[in-house]
Amino acid sequence: MLEHVLNARSVAIIGASKNKTKRGYQAIKTLLADGYEGEIYPVNPKEDFILGLKCYKDITDIPEKVDLALITTPARTIPKILENCGAKGVAGAVIIAGGFRELGEKGRVLEQEMVDAAKANQVRLIGPNTSGMINLKSRMNLVGIQDPPEGSIALLCQSGNMALTLITEATIRKHGGFTYYVGVGNESDIKFHEYLAFFRNDPDTKAILMYVEGMSQGREFLQEAYNTSIEKPIILLKSGRSDKGRKSAGSHTGSLAGMGQVAKAAYERAGIIVIENSDELFPVAETLSSQPPVKNNAIAVLADGGGHATIAADLLTDYGIELADLSEKTKENLKKILPEAASVANPVDVAGGTDADPSIFADCAKILLKDPAVGGLLMVGLFGGYGIRFEKSLAIGEEQAAHRLGAMGRKRSKPIFVHSLYSAYDSHALDLLRHYDIPVHDSLDIACKSMACLCTYGNYLKTYHAKTNFVFNWREKAKPEGKAIIQAAVDEGRHVLLEHEAKQLIKLHGAPTSVGGMAKTADEAVDIARKIDGHVVMKIVSPDILHKSDANGVMLNIGDDSQVKAAFDIIIENARIYNPKADIRGVLVAPMAAKGLEVIIGTKIDEQFGPVIMYGLGGIMVEIMKDVTFWVLPVSPASCKKMIEDTRSSVILSGVRGQKGYDKKTLRKLLGICSELVESYPEIQEMDFNPIILYENGLDVVDARIILKK
Amino acid sequence: MLEHVLNARSVAIIGASKNKTKRGYQAIKTLLADGYEGEIYPVNPKEDFILGLKCYKDITDIPEKVDLALITTPARTIPKILENCGAKGVAGAVIIAGGFRELGEKGRVLEQEMVDAAKANQVRLIGPNTSGMINLKSRMNLVGIQDPPEGSIALLCQSGNMALTLITEATIRKHGGFTYYVGVGNESDIKFHEYLAFFRNDPDTKAILMYVEGMSQGREFLQEAYNTSIEKPIILLKSGRSDKGRKSAGSHTGSLAGMGQVAKAAYERAGIIVIENSDELFPVAETLSSQPPVKNNAIAVLADGGGHATIAADLLTDYGIELADLSEKTKENLKKILPEAASVANPVDVAGGTDADPSIFADCAKILLKDPAVGGLLMVGLFGGYGIRFEKSLAIGEEQAAHRLGAMGRKRSKPIFVHSLYSAYDSHALDLLRHYDIPVHDSLDIACKSMACLCTYGNYLKTYHAKTNFVFNWREKAKPEGKAIIQAAVDEGRHVLLEHEAKQLIKLHGAPTSVGGMAKTADEAVDIARKIDGHVVMKIVSPDILHKSDANGVMLNIGDDSQVKAAFDIIIENARIYNPKADIRGVLVAPMAAKGLEVIIGTKIDEQFGPVIMYGLGGIMVEIMKDVTFWVLPVSPASCKKMIEDTRSSVILSGVRGQKGYDKKTLRKLLGICSELVESYPEIQEMDFNPIILYENGLDVVDARIILKK
Repeated sequence: MLEHVLNARSVAIIGASKNKTKRGYQAIKTLLADGYEGEIYPVNPKEDFILGLKCYKDITDIPEKVDLALITTPARTIPKILENCGAKGVAGAVIIAGGFRELGEKGRVLEQEMVDAAKANQVRLIGPNTSGMINLKSRMNLVGIQDPPEGSIALLCQSGNMALTLITEATIRKHGGFTYYVGVGNESDIKFHEYLAFFRNDPDTKAILMYVEGMSQGREFLQEAYNTSIEKPIILLKSGRSDKGRKSAGSHTGSLAGMGQVAKAAYERAGIIVIENSDELFPVAETLSSQPPVKNNAIAVLADGGGHATIAADLLTDYGIELADLSEKTKENLKKILPEAASVANPVDVAGGTDADPSIFADCAKILLKDPAVGGLLMVGLFGGYGIRFEKSLAIGEEQAAHRLGAMGRKRSKPIFVHSLYSAYDSHALDLLRHYDIPVHDSLDIACKSMACLCTYGNYLKTYHAKTNFVFNWREKAKPEGKAIIQAAVDEGRHVLLEHEAKQLIKLHGAPTSVGGMAKTADEAVDIARKIDGHVVMKIVSPDILHKSDANGVMLNIGDDSQVKAAFDIIIENARIYNPKADIRGVLVAPMAAKGLEVIIGTKIDEQFGPVIMYGLGGIMVEIMKDVTFWVLPVSPASCKKMIEDTRSSVILSGVRGQKGYDKKTLRKLLGICSELVESYPEIQEMDFNPIILYENGLDVVDARIILKK
Repeated sequence: MLEHVLNARSVAIIGASKNKTKRGYQAIKTLLADGYEGEIYPVNPKEDFILGLKCYKDITDIPEKVDLALITTPARTIPKILENCGAKGVAGAVIIAGGFRELGEKGRVLEQEMVDAAKANQVRLIGPNTSGMINLKSRMNLVGIQDPPEGSIALLCQSGNMALTLITEATIRKHGGFTYYVGVGNESDIKFHEYLAFFRNDPDTKAILMYVEGMSQGREFLQEAYNTSIEKPIILLKSGRSDKGRKSAGSHTGSLAGMGQVAKAAYERAGIIVIENSDELFPVAETLSSQPPVKNNAIAVLADGGGHATIAADLLTDYGIELADLSEKTKENLKKILPEAASVANPVDVAGGTDADPSIFADCAKILLKDPAVGGLLMVGLFGGYGIRFEKSLAIGEEQAAHRLGAMGRKRSKPIFVHSLYSAYDSHALDLLRHYDIPVHDSLDIACKSMACLCTYGNYLKTYHAKTNFVFNWREKAKPEGKAIIQAAVDEGRHVLLEHEAKQLIKLHGAPTSVGGMAKTADEAVDIARKIDGHVVMKIVSPDILHKSDANGVMLNIGDDSQVKAAFDIIIENARIYNPKADIRGVLVAPMAAKGLEVIIGTKIDEQFGPVIMYGLGGIMVEIMKDVTFWVLPVSPASCKKMIEDTRSSVILSGVRGQKGYDKKTLRKLLGICSELVESYPEIQEMDFNPIILYENGLDVVDARIILKK
């Protein structure tokens, strides 16, 4: 457990120094300045006292118990130091030094040596290559960022300057702050999911904020996140979505950032609120840590003018939030206190009705929150500035309103928060709101986004299923014939199954597809074609020709015997021209698929999350629409249903504009079969079924490719 | 001209008052406090002096010339006052009062009366229903917002609280400000395009910032915007995109907000930078008013750590901006001054290389800006905070860097600006940057968005064509046969052309479509079918049955004579069952269209911009992909090309993945014909050609509907 590490009651500073420019000096100074509640033990063989504290030659010389060591010495010194830490019985060590795997192979060896030393000596490691950690509750600040604001958010960060950014934002916003900050660094020992489990159990942490570039144990993290997010929200930004961004992330921590879309799908499945714009990170976390989720995806906007009201409505609509339809009673009650020009439909525009007395905002808020259709309230515009911009006397009315809004917010059944132009000004009314844990946003867009996240979280909690399991095990559902197909390829030194082999494999597991037959001669082709009802398609079979169309190795819509014969010869001829050295096995003769809707299914092994599956619309639209969903494997029947529903094209499958729908049931079954295949045959690296033709009843896997691990 | 209105050298306050709560008092006080350079004449029959100024009984009593009247009296008093203003020779009047068309019919009549009085007396009106106007250069502040910062942005706004928002933001940002603010209000006399023309000619205005809910003369505005945007950037937020937002905008100013997508297309065609998030409005305008556009869509990012670098790269990529490929020389030069851990690929991560001396930022900037591949520079992260967060002595290095960055920025060939966490802090280095007109953004997202807008503007200037004309005239290209078709429908009291009439009309103007023939009997149907090569489609023809499929009035793929006969009887029978009272004209017999790609073309009369055309992908995908483009009519051949290119599906038309393409030339021709039809027949309200089947050569308009004005 990380209790003695993150809640350490005593810290040894290994590399303590009297030199003001050294981390080993700054760390002690910060601990003293911030008023750390525990014991501080400087360790330096050459000094007797540092900053008034007794200095020890070696950590083993310290007579009292030491929970945590902050090690500020260079990379190469660490393994030896960890032995001493182990001898002293230290629970954990924070390793500041860089110079490990992010610098290549030599660093990687050193990093492994350090991890081995830590394991052997039972010392848990934070970092290396980290800015450090802070426990705000005991004022154990091992980072050097002064005066981070205390609050209820645990911050888990893979970049030191992002941590500084978020802490600075919290300071500027004058509300919200942190229980812990941990810079995970290279994550060489303690992993993301272990920190998460600790924060899940910390009663003071109400929300967990994460900046992630890449993680080494994605599955364990998803499982822990899934268990955590039902109790407290996790807000996460995954950087490195773009190629250039990924390159930068790669050079930064040495961990490869995973493919953006897979990561987003995986995180969201675990109930995590995924953020893409770093400006939103802290405000959203502040809001989610202090406000209850929106239960019905419908909110009310209370604005001081038509411009703000309209823009808020636009932004909320963009984010998919409904503006609650107010009851007639609500509208009547609003009319009683607002002028004729006011709009009492949602968004509510007070139209000057608060100019003489801003406390009327609280009256409006009370009426709106009482309406059962309203799941939350967003106040937009000038609140907090009436006393600044207009008349000083108006500040009194704003303060009254703030006290009353605070009382409403304390019930914590519906979220209340405020966008104010004046958040950067000194406004007592806004300070009162902050005191009552009502966030004040300076950005209207981010206020709306925060509301969207409260809706997303509320929706998630409603649809949560306790059973989901993220652990992937190789299940022994493999069939002897399936093993034989794979073994045959392996024996030949191939890492690609031939098309008919791939189709045989999925058919073996119940996929409704017709394999056809492999013909070695034109006569064999005729025999196979005769047994097939209707026209046939003929394709070259060669382990050396993967892109059959490029080799002119596919012929469609072949009818009678003479056509089959001719096609066989042409295909073989074309293949020889395309690649004279190709090992040509023959020609696959299969039934010509009827017209239908083209879809794709694929699987791959993701670097972070292991086996994942993709489903989406196929055909010429696929590159344009990019209408695909990802899911971590294995998939349950319910997940298969959700995957299909999550594509925009699912309405086509259901039948649009009076057209017939397509066989979703068989498609779901095929997704399940793909999942089973990946679980059953650990040799499989990637699968690609493209296209699959869907019909009103049934489907056809027209082309299949299975790639084996090398 | 608005010279004497917006640059008035003397202002009469009609409704001047000694009552501190009245606008007629506040206006005079603000003019005095702000130090207005012109003359102030209070007008009130009951007072002799107000705030030390001589008060006149009537405006006509003022002995000197009066340029502008600020009228603060109620709506009903205005027409009479305008007569007096006319008698005095006043050039313009600002009408604060509400209570006109936004309150319904009675208000509309009063507004017309006021406009008539203004016209008759040659007084131009700002408003009514406006917060007023400000000329920052002569300190003529007729609004009551104190101390708006002066700068080089002209602000044109249809919401008083949005104006207050933008002015407050400018104040908080400590950089950038305004030349003018005009609240256009109901826009009853002076229109958006007239203000625009004035700002275009104002040498101090470097950018124009607009908040628009709806405009009355969209075409004139587009033309003026088109002429202006080549000289100075126009940044515009159009609110009321969502239904709820539109409702709110509607209740606010009484002007109907136009359909979001049409407006966006129209504005962008006129070179306007369209913004959708109000947070971005001022920062983008500040950036565009002070920085040159990016000429090559490729920029460099200079960050102080991997986290910031990665996030910036992600955001820029989301916005479609390229990160410039740095030359080897650039990289070498960076390597010389940065530590080993630094990333010298773009985004550049200094990795602590500036920790000891932040002036190294300027060295890096110089190297980057020298690289021809780099079109602009964005600095990201902690700059401005080194002296705050780390060591006070580091502030010196930051200031040195700021001076040198300022010198580089003064060349104004490539934009430079900064994202800083510390923009809200007191930082002399950041103040220096502002002094040198280098914007400092607190939001990384908005900094990236600002860069995106500089790229958009740079791209626009490169592709600008001087010839474009936005004025729509009804051109007499109508043909007698076309007029006859329309007249026949009008004579019958119909406002919908029957399908074969619509097809005849477009065919008349050269559209490559087969009309087929109208059969009144089964035998006539057989005769028509015999003349058609291949199978036919048969459709009911009745002015009372618009949705032919709903009436089972369409039969496809009809082959021989007996099938045609049977189909005729079935269709007539079905139509009678569907609507026993229907006026059934017969059955249209037309060639069955071959398989191809379905597209749609439509036209409508937009409330703001008049005739507009839509083109997009058709078929079952259309509702899902929403892959359509809009254009204001008429369209030139170049515009038709651009319309097709602007859809995501244009790659399908060009032929993807080895497939054949489609006949774009004929499609462009058809778009031109649609344009010509709308220009030629002013009776046309809406046209809908859906589907059009595209082939490798040619196309077929399968269904056509033309609706006439009522």
